Amino acid sequence: MTRHPFATNPTIFGKILRGEIPSKKVYEDDLTYAFEDIAPKAETHILIIPKQHLIGNQDAQTGDAALLGHLMVTANKIAIQLGVQQTGYRLITNAGEGAGQQVPHFHLHLLAGPSLPGF
Amino acid sequence: MTRHPFATNPTIFGKILRGEIPSKKVYEDDLTYAFEDIAPKAETHILIIPKQHLIGNQDAQTGDAALLGHLMVTANKIAIQLGVQQTGYRLITNAGEGAGQQVPHFHLHLLAGPSLPGF
Repeated sequence: MTRHPFATNPTIFGKILRGEIPSKKVYEDDLTYAFEDIAPKAETHILIIPKQHLIGNQDAQTGDAALLGHLMVTANKIAIQLGVQQTGYRLITNAGEGAGQQVPHFHLHLLAGPSLPGF
Repeated sequence: MTRHPFATNPTIFGKILRGEIPSKKVYEDDLTYAFEDIAPKAETHILIIPKQHLIGNQDAQTGDAALLGHLMVTANKIAIQLGVQQTGYRLITNAGEGAGQQVPHFHLHLLAGPSLPGF
C-alpha cells in the first residue's frame, strides 16, 4: 500500500479532508483534522487524523514521529476543549485490518464518557 | 500531580525503570522501555513507557510531542520485532483514572493476537 498525495487520497478520510464528504468538525490546524465519529462507541467519540496520508501506525517510520507526537498532544487539546480531560479519556489506534482498522488512513479514536467500555 | 525525576519516580513503572521491580523486557532505547504486561488482555500485551516521567496523555504539552511520537514509532518497531505488524495490532492509552488509567506514568498498551477484543 502506498501513501497518497492529499489531492488524490482515495480513502473516505481523504474525501472528508477535501470537503467532498461532510463531517462535524471539532478541531483543525495545519497538520490535523478532527471530527465526530458517525457511529459513536461512547458519549464522546472523536476521530483525529493527519492531513498527510499515513496508512496507519503499521506504516509509522522514524520520520513520522513529529507528526504522530503532534496528534497525541492535539488529542489532549481536544479533550480540554470538549471538557473531558479532567474526567478521563482513552486514545486508541488500530494498526491493520486484523486489529479492526476500517479506513487505511491513520486515525486516533478519542473516547470519553460514563459509558466508556472496559478493555 | 507533578512529574517526578527518574531517580525518585514513585510509581510502579518508575521502580521497574530503576530495576527495583523485575519485568520482562521486550525493547529498550535511550528514551523508552517496553515490557510484558503481567496481566495480559490479549496474546500479545506489551506496555511501552517513556523513561522520563509523564503522568499520562492528559499531561501532554507541546514540548512532549517528540517523545510521544517516538513512542508511537517505537510501538511499530516492537510490533515488527514481535511479528505482529503484518497481522495487526492495537495501541491504547488511558488518560486519567476515569478512563481506566491505573498507573500515573504514561503507557501505551500494545495488543495483538487472535483474541483481540472488539472495542
